[in-house]
Amino acid sequence: MNDQVRRSDGRRADELRPVRFTTDFMDQAEGSVLVEIGRTRVICTATLEEGVPAWMRGSGRGWLTAEYAMLPRATSDRTDRESARGKIKGRTHEIQRLIGRSLRAVTDLEALGERTLKVDCDVIGADGGTRTASITGAWLATAMAIGRLLGTGPSDWGTVIAQPLAAVSVGLVGGEALLDLCYEEDSAADVDMNVVMTGDGRFVEVQGTAEGEPFSREAHDELLALAEDGIVELVATQRRIIEGLSS
Amino acid sequence: MNDQVRRSDGRRADELRPVRFTTDFMDQAEGSVLVEIGRTRVICTATLEEGVPAWMRGSGRGWLTAEYAMLPRATSDRTDRESARGKIKGRTHEIQRLIGRSLRAVTDLEALGERTLKVDCDVIGADGGTRTASITGAWLATAMAIGRLLGTGPSDWGTVIAQPLAAVSVGLVGGEALLDLCYEEDSAADVDMNVVMTGDGRFVEVQGTAEGEPFSREAHDELLALAEDGIVELVATQRRIIEGLSS
Amino acid sequence: MNDQVRRSDGRRADELRPVRFTTDFMDQAEGSVLVEIGRTRVICTATLEEGVPAWMRGSGRGWLTAEYAMLPRATSDRTDRESARGKIKGRTHEIQRLIGRSLRAVTDLEALGERTLKVDCDVIGADGGTRTASITGAWLATAMAIGRLLGTGPSDWGTVIAQPLAAVSVGLVGGEALLDLCYEEDSAADVDMNVVMTGDGRFVEVQGTAEGEPFSREAHDELLALAEDGIVELVATQRRIIEGLSS
Amino acid sequence: MNDQVRRSDGRRADELRPVRFTTDFMDQAEGSVLVEIGRTRVICTATLEEGVPAWMRGSGRGWLTAEYAMLPRATSDRTDRESARGKIKGRTHEIQRLIGRSLRAVTDLEALGERTLKVDCDVIGADGGTRTASITGAWLATAMAIGRLLGTGPSDWGTVIAQPLAAVSVGLVGGEALLDLCYEEDSAADVDMNVVMTGDGRFVEVQGTAEGEPFSREAHDELLALAEDGIVELVATQRRIIEGLSS
Amino acid sequence: MNDQVRRSDGRRADELRPVRFTTDFMDQAEGSVLVEIGRTRVICTATLEEGVPAWMRGSGRGWLTAEYAMLPRATSDRTDRESARGKIKGRTHEIQRLIGRSLRAVTDLEALGERTLKVDCDVIGADGGTRTASITGAWLATAMAIGRLLGTGPSDWGTVIAQPLAAVSVGLVGGEALLDLCYEEDSAADVDMNVVMTGDGRFVEVQGTAEGEPFSREAHDELLALAEDGIVELVATQRRIIEGLSS
Amino acid sequence: MNDQVRRSDGRRADELRPVRFTTDFMDQAEGSVLVEIGRTRVICTATLEEGVPAWMRGSGRGWLTAEYAMLPRATSDRTDRESARGKIKGRTHEIQRLIGRSLRAVTDLEALGERTLKVDCDVIGADGGTRTASITGAWLATAMAIGRLLGTGPSDWGTVIAQPLAAVSVGLVGGEALLDLCYEEDSAADVDMNVVMTGDGRFVEVQGTAEGEPFSREAHDELLALAEDGIVELVATQRRIIEGLSS
Repeated sequence: MNDQVRRSDGRRADELRPVRFTTDFMDQAEGSVLVEIGRTRVICTATLEEGVPAWMRGSGRGWLTAEYAMLPRATSDRTDRESARGKIKGRTHEIQRLIGRSLRAVTDLEALGERTLKVDCDVIGADGGTRTASITGAWLATAMAIGRLLGTGPSDWGTVIAQPLAAVSVGLVGGEALLDLCYEEDSAADVDMNVVMTGDGRFVEVQGTAEGEPFSREAHDELLALAEDGIVELVATQRRIIEGLSS
Repeated sequence: MNDQVRRSDGRRADELRPVRFTTDFMDQAEGSVLVEIGRTRVICTATLEEGVPAWMRGSGRGWLTAEYAMLPRATSDRTDRESARGKIKGRTHEIQRLIGRSLRAVTDLEALGERTLKVDCDVIGADGGTRTASITGAWLATAMAIGRLLGTGPSDWGTVIAQPLAAVSVGLVGGEALLDLCYEEDSAADVDMNVVMTGDGRFVEVQGTAEGEPFSREAHDELLALAEDGIVELVATQRRIIEGLSS
Repeated sequence: MNDQVRRSDGRRADELRPVRFTTDFMDQAEGSVLVEIGRTRVICTATLEEGVPAWMRGSGRGWLTAEYAMLPRATSDRTDRESARGKIKGRTHEIQRLIGRSLRAVTDLEALGERTLKVDCDVIGADGGTRTASITGAWLATAMAIGRLLGTGPSDWGTVIAQPLAAVSVGLVGGEALLDLCYEEDSAADVDMNVVMTGDGRFVEVQGTAEGEPFSREAHDELLALAEDGIVELVATQRRIIEGLSS
Repeated sequence: MNDQVRRSDGRRADELRPVRFTTDFMDQAEGSVLVEIGRTRVICTATLEEGVPAWMRGSGRGWLTAEYAMLPRATSDRTDRESARGKIKGRTHEIQRLIGRSLRAVTDLEALGERTLKVDCDVIGADGGTRTASITGAWLATAMAIGRLLGTGPSDWGTVIAQPLAAVSVGLVGGEALLDLCYEEDSAADVDMNVVMTGDGRFVEVQGTAEGEPFSREAHDELLALAEDGIVELVATQRRIIEGLSS
Repeated sequence: MNDQVRRSDGRRADELRPVRFTTDFMDQAEGSVLVEIGRTRVICTATLEEGVPAWMRGSGRGWLTAEYAMLPRATSDRTDRESARGKIKGRTHEIQRLIGRSLRAVTDLEALGERTLKVDCDVIGADGGTRTASITGAWLATAMAIGRLLGTGPSDWGTVIAQPLAAVSVGLVGGEALLDLCYEEDSAADVDMNVVMTGDGRFVEVQGTAEGEPFSREAHDELLALAEDGIVELVATQRRIIEGLSS
Repeated sequence: MNDQVRRSDGRRADELRPVRFTTDFMDQAEGSVLVEIGRTRVICTATLEEGVPAWMRGSGRGWLTAEYAMLPRATSDRTDRESARGKIKGRTHEIQRLIGRSLRAVTDLEALGERTLKVDCDVIGADGGTRTASITGAWLATAMAIGRLLGTGPSDWGTVIAQPLAAVSVGLVGGEALLDLCYEEDSAADVDMNVVMTGDGRFVEVQGTAEGEPFSREAHDELLALAEDGIVELVATQRRIIEGLSS
């Protein structure tokens, strides 16, 4: 990896954009975070409801589901609302399935009991990496909701959640492996990879896609390593935020 | 009117909740405002696009349309998304028609030319009065977009917009006429009235509804007077904000 | 008000169009009326079913809901069916919510018990004022259904309904305040106001809208007074009809 | 056939219910008829518009399409609206396809030129035979629209329409072949047959269905003969009505 | 009938296309058949589930329902999927209602008990007569499912099904009555008739439609006789196939 | 890897199920293949149409899009049709986006010119790996369509397609890395990975998902290597089939 590459916003190839978490952004939700990664901004809330869907009743286990949407002017040109179109786009389905699956991988649904966690990720600024920012923010909102409702305070999430969880995108742009792509870089990428990883360094999702040329095993390995480093940094920030809440 | 009434949040009967406008809240929109009236919070954006719908082409006139939505956790209990239900509720239709109609009443569509203004109001906190807060914030977002794109700066909206415009709710609660109802008051109101008024004191909409008992002409007149006073105050704040943007 | 104004159909400014009620127009409904106000014609039926929606069960209270639709050739040009479009327009939602809310305001849902009143208003001729004609006719159909099923005959509606209810539109056209606008007048109106009032002269809804110029408090007051007079006349006709049914 | 059978309404086995056509029932349509066959009542309108759907443009030929719906209280129990359900039932599709196909069989689409006939059949009373009553009424409404707009008056339909067209239902009930089934008979029928025939005695549709037991060739032939007689009578009435319009 | 007519594929006027049944084509279904009639190919499956829809519970009777669809390239030009359009076409509704009604006519729903038969007909090749091939194949799939699950083997269907059932199309093409129309003939037909008949020669459905000119009683009778002969042949093949399964 | 593992169907850990391609399965499509991988069976067709969607017109480039569906009884229990539900499930969206993206990665859309390739994958047997079988079969159908329509015969696909393309699933089941999971194995897998690779050994998609426990970098690498071997074998079979077509 060439650390000397200079990106349009001046970052190094292996540098994250500035990360900011504003906790309790939505004052009526059990857990909520406004996550900002560069100009990408997502409101994440976690709702904890008693009961589970009919097909799970009596199982003693809980359920977790996620929804994802964008405000029309999260984007540079206005995007039509999915409620007005009357149906949800394939991209949205794909993203909300990814968010839900990722969070379930670190959630102990037995320990949750017959309760449902509903995670909402609403993008108010879209500058690349909205799905990975959503996962990173949603983990924090979920942990806060669990800590408050099932534990002793927002940092006491451990009874139900096994691990911190964060996600980042990496990509090959003009032959360079870059961490945390902004929209402009993402549009120009030959390969785009989204990685979801736990606090102890294991993978929950690895999704690499050739947007232009197919990619070699070497490129794949380089990108994965870059993502791992980025996620270690994000998890450290998550831990700092959530520990700060209890003091 | 009994100015001695003490409301649950300590306000007088004729007192607005604290009003705050955060301009340019959405950094990719031509005009945007986060309007906060007490705990009611709405992100308003104005998009100005070239062209008009097919049925208006060649008319030389512009068009203005509005959409309204709520984030699931804007409310105390989570509300299902309209995109997931696949259709828009009657209440939403009613509100977005009201917002659009109100803004068109002060917009000179001839002067706009063959352009379309799309106004989006996304509620992130719902504590009563979301439709009136939307109108009040949307006017500011729209004026900013017009001033920037068709004038010399955000405060130069006058070529297309005739007047400032603001809205407020009033209601009869336990026999008292109250200004700017919060959710708790709204739920208990016998009469609920939404008033939309211009900066020069004329009405664009007056919608009074008996939720419980029908109301007399006297009650109607008292409520309307209370609303007029509240709107005068809101318009003064709007003017202050927009003038501050150009300096 | 200038009573000397001559309208396109020769009426005075404060004159209703000819009003006709044909009761029992739909021979299978518990209550039904064909209401004709000039060339505006609406079939109103009231269905009284045992039981209430799931969310109200066990409350001991009843429910009332309304639907509104137009036949395709109620209008001068054919209007597409909402069933063929697969969704209901915003205007329809707004109107059926208004009809339902208005009727509920005079209906004692406790006295109704766990029953559901479903009111259907199907417009077969649209020449302005379809929503107000619907309310006026629907009240009669509802009263008949209640009198028959819960009382001793069609005129015995008083156990469940507190008051007669009627509605009318008024508007400012070319500077004149006019009662009961026909389509041509409605299209030209600067201000359009729909008023729903009870038999004892109290308001259930007041909805004034500036279609062109915003309107002054004086204009508002003049229109409201005109509507009050018109509704007094409509209620007198309703009473005559329903009393005629029992003899 | 046993002419001595007495039916619930006193008719003979081969007797039609009373037939009544009220022309120009919808005052804004080019052609309209309220057709009443016993307690079955259908409002039929014909709209003649310039132009054809995109896929037919430039062909020099016209198009004819039909829609069918029921008011909620056309039936003894209230039927939900298809607009509220958001989709059209299979039964409705089947009926409106039958109506359109039948009328096209007697319409000279070349002679119509690039125009579209839209036929609407709205049932306001459903007591069996709504689809056949719709066809019988729709033919009259269509002929009137064509006569007025392309000919010299409502009876001058011959340039575009080849033949009168009417339809009737017949069925086997308790072993008896009956003409023009009412709802009660239809519900009890073992075989139900709908026949659409032209004024010169040729078939456009023959649809026989075993509701219970399959039926023999003999039963089929007896039913078809009964239907032929009924349609001859209906066509005579159609001719009388339409000739009466021009004098 | 002129047996000397030579059709585009060399058949005589009264000759079926080659018929082939491949049983157990779908290895996970209780009963399944790939029916091929010339180039028309339909996968028919029968699913037998315990229980009935809510409105039939406790009646002691079973239910049978059918669905029909086409793969996009069953046709010469690709046809859009109904799932992508979000709604089912009128033609599909009509066909699946016909299939279900036909099969119910020979099924003893009492003897079935509170179970549901779901019949699926998926066309993978469409060369005319897909609805009649579907019925003919679906009967076989249904009989196999019943024989296996409620009897002693695939040929033991008699406890629940009264009769074999098959269907064929006939038509008048260029003045000739033809049996089993292929797509090319169907497109050119003046009259198209679909006939569903039981193994003992009684009718379940007779649907004759004038596509061009209305047709005489004589033509109707000739077509019906031709269909009867074709169905006798199809039923003989069905019997041979199902008897072969048990040995 | 432990090659001694015996799987439920007797395969070794690194062994594919039997693979069979039946070309020209749909006789009206430009390219079609029935691909069978064990009991998983998918009908893949490729349609080549002139023209592109409106948003691409004039670009000189072509477009490729894919759709995926299942017959109701492809599964052990019957699955409801998406056309009957009125909307497409998230899983379907995700799969058809993956198929389209994968094929576009090896298709030269410039060389295709302003034409649209529509790929349809209809599953008639679902025993795990339907999305990877779809990609493998769809590549063959697409290559055949291109070779026939733009080249000299079905094996002449090279002007538009850069590389063969195949896909396979791998997974960790009970601690063992297994190639080409059947449904039973897939349901028990802790990690599930779908890999799409070109004939020259480069990746188009790598999608690894923790269904249970998160997975280590080592496990990830082992699975990827196993998939690479499987795809090499599939591509060899594809090449053999397509070369056989031209002789």
